[in-house]
Amino acid sequence: MRIIQKEIEIPAKPRGFHLITQDIIESIDELQTIDVGFLNVFIKHTSASLTINENADPTVRHDFEKHINEMVPENQPYYKHTLEGPDDMPAHIKSSLMGSSIQIPITDGRLNMGMWQGIYLCEHRNNATSRQLVLTVYGN
Amino acid sequence: MRIIQKEIEIPAKPRGFHLITQDIIESIDELQTIDVGFLNVFIKHTSASLTINENADPTVRHDFEKHINEMVPENQPYYKHTLEGPDDMPAHIKSSLMGSSIQIPITDGRLNMGMWQGIYLCEHRNNATSRQLVLTVYGN
Amino acid sequence: MRIIQKEIEIPAKPRGFHLITQDIIESIDELQTIDVGFLNVFIKHTSASLTINENADPTVRHDFEKHINEMVPENQPYYKHTLEGPDDMPAHIKSSLMGSSIQIPITDGRLNMGMWQGIYLCEHRNNATSRQLVLTVYGN
Repeated sequence: MRIIQKEIEIPAKPRGFHLITQDIIESIDELQTIDVGFLNVFIKHTSASLTINENADPTVRHDFEKHINEMVPENQPYYKHTLEGPDDMPAHIKSSLMGSSIQIPITDGRLNMGMWQGIYLCEHRNNATSRQLVLTVYGN
Repeated sequence: MRIIQKEIEIPAKPRGFHLITQDIIESIDELQTIDVGFLNVFIKHTSASLTINENADPTVRHDFEKHINEMVPENQPYYKHTLEGPDDMPAHIKSSLMGSSIQIPITDGRLNMGMWQGIYLCEHRNNATSRQLVLTVYGN
Repeated sequence: MRIIQKEIEIPAKPRGFHLITQDIIESIDELQTIDVGFLNVFIKHTSASLTINENADPTVRHDFEKHINEMVPENQPYYKHTLEGPDDMPAHIKSSLMGSSIQIPITDGRLNMGMWQGIYLCEHRNNATSRQLVLTVYGN
């Protein structure tokens, strides 16, 4: 079994949910040489996250941002971690709800996702910087 | 290290949380030949999801469905992705909250879960069709 | 590719979010012998969970506990799974929101996390016992 790992930087994005499937695929060509295996993507941050969801209609990403702000509101009276601004503590909670890594099967040199699935970078901060991702493909 | 991958179809289920541990285990016999490794299950959809939870009392699955509908209600005024019905956008959000894959250690040819753990297929649509899963076992 | 697996027990902790990064690393020395690979941590329970989040300020863990109790309140009128106390059904739901396993890349014998990332054990029961974790490292 082979394993190939790379670290990439995704330029700063506005707060919200963003499709990055193509950025990922283009960053790790070796994916095409794996017959059966996995792609793992890991984000090295605690205020941005990764998930898999609908890849076609931008209103899905809009609605994700709107609703997650209802589920995890800013300025709750019980928040103590408030020094870095009202978006900071909610960003940490949202990150754990979405998750810090995704794992996708590879079959015949391609991501074996459903036709409507894509990879989202979920940016939970108002003024984010770029984000570091670790990409790993492994398999036979 | 060996890696074996299969794709299976789970027949359409009603909206709610369903135990599918036995369906998974019976679909991939090769699991028994792995001494140390993993089972990964990936769902190729964005309105159904996978999680691990309590495998004994059906009221747990009932309460999951009731509460997730409170956390992610239908017909929110800010939803724009509404063409496919009121259950569609909530289904996408619920899918990302639960997740699109699970990874379970294999030890001595068996899933090394706790005695109360089982695999749930979480169906978030009212009128779902069958669901495609990618099963992969790997290890020594 | 090599794969090494161990099972460890984390002594009982109070309800809340707890940093266990050092407990994990010290329990599986073999991590240092992997150039490129992964650490997977799996929790064998359905009322405690694992996530990756901020490793420095204890108020983050405080705020996690406060807010998850708002998202998943006790004593909801629609809960049927109530025999084991008001904290039981919420514990199951919280576990699936956070997740039962984490997967972290290994690079040059070290966990390749961001400098602010740590591993949380999320204890969702009031009177928990110890928790069993399966640790697996694999790679070249």
